[in-house]
Amino acid sequence: MGQKPNVLARKCASRRYLALVASKWSLLVINALDDGPARNGSLMRKVEGISQKMLTQTLRDLETTGIVTRDDHGTLPPHVTYELTPLGRSMRKEVRSLVVWVETHVPELAATTGS
Amino acid sequence: MGQKPNVLARKCASRRYLALVASKWSLLVINALDDGPARNGSLMRKVEGISQKMLTQTLRDLETTGIVTRDDHGTLPPHVTYELTPLGRSMRKEVRSLVVWVETHVPELAATTGS
Repeated sequence: MGQKPNVLARKCASRRYLALVASKWSLLVINALDDGPARNGSLMRKVEGISQKMLTQTLRDLETTGIVTRDDHGTLPPHVTYELTPLGRSMRKEVRSLVVWVETHVPELAATTGS
Repeated sequence: MGQKPNVLARKCASRRYLALVASKWSLLVINALDDGPARNGSLMRKVEGISQKMLTQTLRDLETTGIVTRDDHGTLPPHVTYELTPLGRSMRKEVRSLVVWVETHVPELAATTGS
């Protein structure tokens, strides 16, 4: 890599990763995995309102970038868990801070939009 | 508000605001406004690759939630600037941290995806 990554540069790979990480569903799933490994059903309950299709897609995207790992325990009935990797855990603070900022500022955000 | 805002709750308003804030383009525009007020043309250059339509939409969304303010200086030719509001400035640290995390971890993210 010749240059320092810069999300504002059109062709920088960092922008693609930012888009992947900074989607509503990615942030919610990362946030839901904060407590430790979880199964599909548990994630469906935690991230209220996510569709199975969106959860599967989000987990797959996070797996592809090495943020989440999928463990198939190889048992019958199947027991599959998802967990943040060390890379995923290294961004927990940043994700959590953004989520907390939004949760804390709901009154101001709502006041402006008038809803 | 009866309950503490929680982005994982389906009907919580915070989730709508998270979705708005945590979009790739919102984060890039907030990031580009970090240096101070900017005109449309300057933002188009800073946020490389954004279309005029997407920039207008993103600025409008950020204005609606009180994160960005639009100042029309009322001159001819028109001179319009966009600026982070105090609310917008209060989230700079969180946005910047997430962006820095992504920029810093490009090698690991790329290693996993094999690109």
